[in-house]
Amino acid sequence: MAPFMLSLVLALQGQQGPVVSPEVKADRTVTFRLRAPKAAEVLLNGEWKGGGKLPMTKDDQGLWSLTVGPLEPDLYGYSYAVDGMTLTDPSNPVLKPMRSPRTSVVDVPGDPPRLHEYQEVPHGTVRLHEYASKALGRRRPLRVYTPPGYDRDPAARYPVLYLFHGSGDTEATWTSFGHAHLIADNLLAQGKARAMILVMTDGHAVVGPEARARNVEMFGRDLLEDVLPFVEANYRTRADRESRAIVGLSMGGGQSLTVGLNHLELFAWVGGFSAAINNPEVTVASALADPAATNSKLKLLWIACGKDDGLVKNAQALSEVLTRREIRHELRITDGNHSWPVWRGYLGDFLPRLFAEGK
Amino acid sequence: MAPFMLSLVLALQGQQGPVVSPEVKADRTVTFRLRAPKAAEVLLNGEWKGGGKLPMTKDDQGLWSLTVGPLEPDLYGYSYAVDGMTLTDPSNPVLKPMRSPRTSVVDVPGDPPRLHEYQEVPHGTVRLHEYASKALGRRRPLRVYTPPGYDRDPAARYPVLYLFHGSGDTEATWTSFGHAHLIADNLLAQGKARAMILVMTDGHAVVGPEARARNVEMFGRDLLEDVLPFVEANYRTRADRESRAIVGLSMGGGQSLTVGLNHLELFAWVGGFSAAINNPEVTVASALADPAATNSKLKLLWIACGKDDGLVKNAQALSEVLTRREIRHELRITDGNHSWPVWRGYLGDFLPRLFAEGK
Repeated sequence: MAPFMLSLVLALQGQQGPVVSPEVKADRTVTFRLRAPKAAEVLLNGEWKGGGKLPMTKDDQGLWSLTVGPLEPDLYGYSYAVDGMTLTDPSNPVLKPMRSPRTSVVDVPGDPPRLHEYQEVPHGTVRLHEYASKALGRRRPLRVYTPPGYDRDPAARYPVLYLFHGSGDTEATWTSFGHAHLIADNLLAQGKARAMILVMTDGHAVVGPEARARNVEMFGRDLLEDVLPFVEANYRTRADRESRAIVGLSMGGGQSLTVGLNHLELFAWVGGFSAAINNPEVTVASALADPAATNSKLKLLWIACGKDDGLVKNAQALSEVLTRREIRHELRITDGNHSWPVWRGYLGDFLPRLFAEGK
Repeated sequence: MAPFMLSLVLALQGQQGPVVSPEVKADRTVTFRLRAPKAAEVLLNGEWKGGGKLPMTKDDQGLWSLTVGPLEPDLYGYSYAVDGMTLTDPSNPVLKPMRSPRTSVVDVPGDPPRLHEYQEVPHGTVRLHEYASKALGRRRPLRVYTPPGYDRDPAARYPVLYLFHGSGDTEATWTSFGHAHLIADNLLAQGKARAMILVMTDGHAVVGPEARARNVEMFGRDLLEDVLPFVEANYRTRADRESRAIVGLSMGGGQSLTVGLNHLELFAWVGGFSAAINNPEVTVASALADPAATNSKLKLLWIACGKDDGLVKNAQALSEVLTRREIRHELRITDGNHSWPVWRGYLGDFLPRLFAEGK
């Protein structure tokens, strides 16, 4: 058989997919499968509780499998360890967008569907852009969510939430894995949140050895000098501070608190989800310098962290500094650890608080 | 160290990326690297000419590497074979969207840049949708490219090209790997093509054992009953047959020729790139039945295939059938095989031919 025809046959066999993985059943148990006839050991690593290093079993066809659960309805990352090498699931087209992509995604739906799930409601649109960052001297990706109906009324203008991911993620993670667009669609349909634009940037402005020292600063410059002007030039935004919010998770929470609290002339709604923020006396100094002015400008300062998250001490330390200066804020210490199920929930709690009139 | 902090440190080490791969140098040589200290053999498989099963070399830190090239400027898929297991490159965030994702992407830029590369010209937007397919009874993804300026003039209407991928690809492949949006941007900026909307669907309407018998039929029903009405309801299209084109590659070429040539009441511009089409007497029967009517409706029928592609015989057979019936068409037998460098080139040749006035 000619090499081309052989590869076509193999591609078609792959297409017809004898290996189905993951298989999510109605009882919320999930079966994972991997064909690896030569492997001596295959482990499944999943992000659900108790999902670490689960040994899989090989049948006489070289197909490894394991059934877990029932799992709580949510989206989870997982990967295989095949004789010590980390592999994504070759039968699953859904990958978590990451700088080092090693994680496939399993979606365990709820009944009724959870807030992050696709539901039969009007849907907004996620739009992909690239822009030339003058601050960073390179091309950068950007995702923008526009709410349902955005294209129908060319006169309507919308408030904007700038929404940042964590270390290792990309500008695609908040939609592909966080389902931010679906959370916004569902809250809007339920009358619980306002129609808004979401702007999701790439948080890794500086990579390599200089990242720790310079990433937050250069990320902030790119945001204010490039992203914000791009969004306001290309979208029908309400371009006043009371129509701009800023929030992020983990590394992105450090970015949102630092940029937001030092730029209250631009942002009236500020949040941090499990924020990686240190030395608040230094990093948010300009907000601390004049508490009365800060209180008069802030519509909302919302800080949340899971009690099993190593960063909970940072959230508490920030809250203590703010309390000492009598700066109004909300501190939510919740169940959960440093993980996306927690952050999807925070976004569901945060969006309804934004852009309320008369606050 | 607490497990959380350990994973944070590991994540930060990953973020700071001691392993850089692929590294594309100015002379268009490329170095690939993979840390796999326990592996006995690592091979590199790349889509460039001569890129199959290239042995990599391990250093005393367990880092495998290989430098190849110089490569012709283009985008290429590649993967590693680690002791027989196929791995994507964990240092590279760019993956080729596929149903079975096993392929990372290296981008070797040209000087001057090639037609598929990002250039400093006005850019359109790629928009992500999901729609509820009544024909298929399930939710389906969809990508739509709108040309530069689409949002600026709410009165402007645009012609539409329906653009289909090959077997194993997804609705994302024509943009992420094919760079269809950048090809359209660049041709428009050069004055060589008209502003148009591109619609990219998921070609795998039916999967599993029934795919071979029923995929083209069910894909066509989903396209005509769900996708086309969705696009015309949500975008400012020119909704006449002379403003609709249809083309695809490989499996998608079979789909575009079958659906297009059987629905000349909807499409006036039809093409197939390396099309997987068999039995044209049957599959495009309605176009063959009345050659005079077909010639009067078709603005363009464009068939292209690489001379080293196993499907070149299918293109020639289709052309012979059309010639016997005196149906006007163009047959282009070009250099190249069954691969994306060929299809990016075809799109660059095809777009300028579309939606010309007075033809």
